[in-house]
Amino acid sequence: MDNQMSETLVRTGPGTALGNVMRRYWVPILLSREIAEPDGPQVRVQILGEKLLAFRDTDGHAALIDEFCSHRGVSLYFGRNEKNGICCGYHGVKFDRNGHCVEVPSLPKTREACKHLDIKAYPCIERGGIVWAYMGPKDKQPEPPNLEWCNLPDSHVFVSKRLQECNYLQAMEGGIDTSHVSYAHAYEVASDPLHMDSKALKYFADGNVIFEVEQQPHGLTMFGRRNGEPDSYYWRITQWLFPWYTLIPPFGDHAMGGHAWIPIDDENCWAWSINFHPGRPLTEEERTALEAGKGIHCEYEEGTFRPKANKDNDYLIDRQAQKEMRTFTGVFGIATQDTSLQESMGTIQDRSKEILLPTDRAIVMARRMLHDAAMANTLTPDAEPPAVHADRQFVRAAGVLLPRGQQPQGWAAEHLNNGKDKPVFSV
Amino acid sequence: MDNQMSETLVRTGPGTALGNVMRRYWVPILLSREIAEPDGPQVRVQILGEKLLAFRDTDGHAALIDEFCSHRGVSLYFGRNEKNGICCGYHGVKFDRNGHCVEVPSLPKTREACKHLDIKAYPCIERGGIVWAYMGPKDKQPEPPNLEWCNLPDSHVFVSKRLQECNYLQAMEGGIDTSHVSYAHAYEVASDPLHMDSKALKYFADGNVIFEVEQQPHGLTMFGRRNGEPDSYYWRITQWLFPWYTLIPPFGDHAMGGHAWIPIDDENCWAWSINFHPGRPLTEEERTALEAGKGIHCEYEEGTFRPKANKDNDYLIDRQAQKEMRTFTGVFGIATQDTSLQESMGTIQDRSKEILLPTDRAIVMARRMLHDAAMANTLTPDAEPPAVHADRQFVRAAGVLLPRGQQPQGWAAEHLNNGKDKPVFSV
Amino acid sequence: MDNQMSETLVRTGPGTALGNVMRRYWVPILLSREIAEPDGPQVRVQILGEKLLAFRDTDGHAALIDEFCSHRGVSLYFGRNEKNGICCGYHGVKFDRNGHCVEVPSLPKTREACKHLDIKAYPCIERGGIVWAYMGPKDKQPEPPNLEWCNLPDSHVFVSKRLQECNYLQAMEGGIDTSHVSYAHAYEVASDPLHMDSKALKYFADGNVIFEVEQQPHGLTMFGRRNGEPDSYYWRITQWLFPWYTLIPPFGDHAMGGHAWIPIDDENCWAWSINFHPGRPLTEEERTALEAGKGIHCEYEEGTFRPKANKDNDYLIDRQAQKEMRTFTGVFGIATQDTSLQESMGTIQDRSKEILLPTDRAIVMARRMLHDAAMANTLTPDAEPPAVHADRQFVRAAGVLLPRGQQPQGWAAEHLNNGKDKPVFSV
Repeated sequence: MDNQMSETLVRTGPGTALGNVMRRYWVPILLSREIAEPDGPQVRVQILGEKLLAFRDTDGHAALIDEFCSHRGVSLYFGRNEKNGICCGYHGVKFDRNGHCVEVPSLPKTREACKHLDIKAYPCIERGGIVWAYMGPKDKQPEPPNLEWCNLPDSHVFVSKRLQECNYLQAMEGGIDTSHVSYAHAYEVASDPLHMDSKALKYFADGNVIFEVEQQPHGLTMFGRRNGEPDSYYWRITQWLFPWYTLIPPFGDHAMGGHAWIPIDDENCWAWSINFHPGRPLTEEERTALEAGKGIHCEYEEGTFRPKANKDNDYLIDRQAQKEMRTFTGVFGIATQDTSLQESMGTIQDRSKEILLPTDRAIVMARRMLHDAAMANTLTPDAEPPAVHADRQFVRAAGVLLPRGQQPQGWAAEHLNNGKDKPVFSV
Repeated sequence: MDNQMSETLVRTGPGTALGNVMRRYWVPILLSREIAEPDGPQVRVQILGEKLLAFRDTDGHAALIDEFCSHRGVSLYFGRNEKNGICCGYHGVKFDRNGHCVEVPSLPKTREACKHLDIKAYPCIERGGIVWAYMGPKDKQPEPPNLEWCNLPDSHVFVSKRLQECNYLQAMEGGIDTSHVSYAHAYEVASDPLHMDSKALKYFADGNVIFEVEQQPHGLTMFGRRNGEPDSYYWRITQWLFPWYTLIPPFGDHAMGGHAWIPIDDENCWAWSINFHPGRPLTEEERTALEAGKGIHCEYEEGTFRPKANKDNDYLIDRQAQKEMRTFTGVFGIATQDTSLQESMGTIQDRSKEILLPTDRAIVMARRMLHDAAMANTLTPDAEPPAVHADRQFVRAAGVLLPRGQQPQGWAAEHLNNGKDKPVFSV
Repeated sequence: MDNQMSETLVRTGPGTALGNVMRRYWVPILLSREIAEPDGPQVRVQILGEKLLAFRDTDGHAALIDEFCSHRGVSLYFGRNEKNGICCGYHGVKFDRNGHCVEVPSLPKTREACKHLDIKAYPCIERGGIVWAYMGPKDKQPEPPNLEWCNLPDSHVFVSKRLQECNYLQAMEGGIDTSHVSYAHAYEVASDPLHMDSKALKYFADGNVIFEVEQQPHGLTMFGRRNGEPDSYYWRITQWLFPWYTLIPPFGDHAMGGHAWIPIDDENCWAWSINFHPGRPLTEEERTALEAGKGIHCEYEEGTFRPKANKDNDYLIDRQAQKEMRTFTGVFGIATQDTSLQESMGTIQDRSKEILLPTDRAIVMARRMLHDAAMANTLTPDAEPPAVHADRQFVRAAGVLLPRGQQPQGWAAEHLNNGKDKPVFSV
């Protein structure tokens, strides 16, 4: 990929082409429980290169405003969250959740006198245990996000996030690139009792996977074909939902998986990981395992969302375990495997040096869709990017046995990509 | 403030306009006790962007020379302090406190043979427990500093310094900006038995402070008016002494306070903190409290002058204590409150984004005086900056009750700003 | 030295003039025991600014290839070392020790299909417990290195390496500059029972050393003259072997010493330290001491080759010991003394500020030889640099008593610089 295209795809700060596109969607900002209490501690967050402050006001509204006071530039992190606003710790200048300056001790208490001190604020909503914000132009604000896991009861969903210390794109490409599962996660997947069953294991033993990709209005549908029963193929159907979501098929009645890959700045991203079951609450056993960092989740450095296994400790690589084929790469855990590989590419992968392979077709297509949307935004800022409408966002991943003669595209179109009327469970 | 003016005010390295101005004054370098013993360990110090080495020579003179040997550029920190000079650890090249190269093992022991190896050295004096250096042009060296706390008996003074990890200007502006006391330090000041008494507390309860500023030959005098007794106002009068000193009024017979804000480089400064009483020794109780880091002083990371509460640990913020109104910002200690707020503005505040308020008038005036002096130096390097003469440096802060009809400027001119003949005590 | 010449001498990355010259020699890469086992853990190494991966393949060959997979740029450190190659942890793309891509899961298993994925690989050999690589043009590969310590039995040699956090040149200049021994290492050398004997100590007491240097086809021979017996001088003869080796004379029957100063990148280097005795195995006592970090070796931070005494802890400087003349600089250990002084010059010494002395003649000559070779390479890339042929590399250091009337150059030419037929032992 040439450098110019790469620059377009990896830069998402204010005023960048792709940054403008991403600001047309609701953005996952932080876990609702990070600002659990009204008037509780405010939290610094950086998203799409913007330094922001999240808090819950007295009335219980989640809020997201500029981190810094407009007066002298002091961080409002050192302010007071009280009486429906954040009061700057330096001189008591106060802002509400709309960014309105509602009090300046040395000025009259009128809107007129204070409004030139107003700061940036983004509308927030809460779905699926996450505070989402809309950071784009006011007149383009879309309906609330309609991903399946957003709208299930709390009991059916488990959400975590972890810091990944590289550009969002190479992290997300790992989510799109289903072909790496057979290598990076080979022994991990096979030994996971929570997510695999004997049937899935049997199908998975077929290493000769055939990949197909189909461009969709919502993004991409990826198909991976393995031998199933004598008269059928086992198809694993994965989704990429523009601009930053991926969906992972379950095995049998296990929970489904999903990710959101959200830029913090151009050299860091949040890897959100979601497990959910559309038809039942997660079991106690499942929830305990997920909370312990199993599956696509991880353990953290105390008091942070930085993984305990990180680049400073070589991801706790265990060469003996690698030798004994208990882990393919020497690193344990799906999340850590992906992180170690992707961070090792550099904080921003130099894509001018890569040599793509046939299995990278989905990545190429996703890059092109992102690039097209960025170019469209440059030419026509009003242009509507893909899947910005809620009704495009209800898609599913699935694993399914189909007769050997049947192509999976039609089945997917009917069962996975057309809205919430036809929930489908996977084999 | 535009970027060009900001650049002028924050850059103080060699050859900068304001750096030239600052080099016309005696500069506080380090505590005398840091180089307590003749021929004791030398100490690396960086001041105004210059890397220097302080030591006490065999004869007991404090000395300040270039940190690096002129021969191969090795740090003289790894040399030997002995026989009235520092001997480089690499090849034994030796320098005395005047920077004269007095010995090169491979050259004849004559001044003529060695003088091309001479290094930078600055004249030093000691006052108030501090080693001061004059870093400016030789023919402009002024009389020794004449601040009141410089010339009191040791028993009457307590001095400390702490590293502040931001530009000196935003730190000093905090010292000039008396309006923040009612917010950042609100609960701190009110709960400090050592510095407040019941009368002061009564006056301080008046949150509606009226601020006035007056430009002076020595810098600025700031006046803060609160209700006093029925027929009087309680005036708190604070001083800014060009280019980097601030003076804080005492309450009643408590010790006075002062600061010096000295650039280390453009992203760090020394915040010197002084308490002193012109009329009596500090009590044992006072000294014990100050040594423990109370008041405007602080506790340190072991073996350093970096505060124990610093940006790496979010200044030990305590949200519960903030909630319970035991601290306004969540951070404890006047020094730490100022540091946390000022460091959060970035290492060099982006002043193009600030929106100043009526209470910032003193800051605006101080900036203008600094800028004027810098511009004057650019046009006429010989120009004399404010208060370079010792007789301009003896000024005082005070708290005083004045009849409601009386303006404080005249009182201050008579009692505070005109030299040492009329010591005044404050209410 | 002007900045342009300095740039030429300190830059050794791919495509630089001196980097090209250095790539004409076998380069010490890592200890053989770092990749002890066939199919054992691979090791990341950076040499001459190139990020590389060293491993031992199934057949036992040491190998050095690009650190990163040609497919997506992932570090092969997170791959599998098995079946004569490294298999990338992301998608199973596999490379052998020649850098040939031997397997791409999604491509046919033919050379033709895979060869566009080939990566950089350098031929390796092992000598003296070290893996060496040839990183230059294929048609210029010289005979294996012929330094004396390379070709002795394991029993006769002890090799260590340590990270030095500065440019290789200022580290190597310390090795060339024998005049610093009388200062930096003064008390260290005198108190070392393993390397000194009473006779050497007697000669060494003469502080008035006369230095001479002679340019050689292999580099430089440095002569240091002290008073010996009444009718003789004690000459210490040190060698610099182009481009990065130094050799240290022994005392009596003690082991000889040597160093290699290898650029990691422009701000770090490996200081290799070698002790060897051409005529006998090292004794148990000697080996124990060397393994404990005595002499020119050092102790490490656990699990690394970074010295335990390093710039983060001021090299464990002990001012009391310095005062008591147990160490000249306050730092203990020859390696640590050199490192502390040389790192204190900055990661790349600013040579425009140095003032050279008569004792720096060897340094000036070495710089000129390096510069000449770099310029020659720029004009004629085929030009042959000094001592690239093995028969030029067998030189020795020695300490010898010569009659007062005899110059040492002739003696050295006959006994030290002309190949392996005439081993000479030193007094």
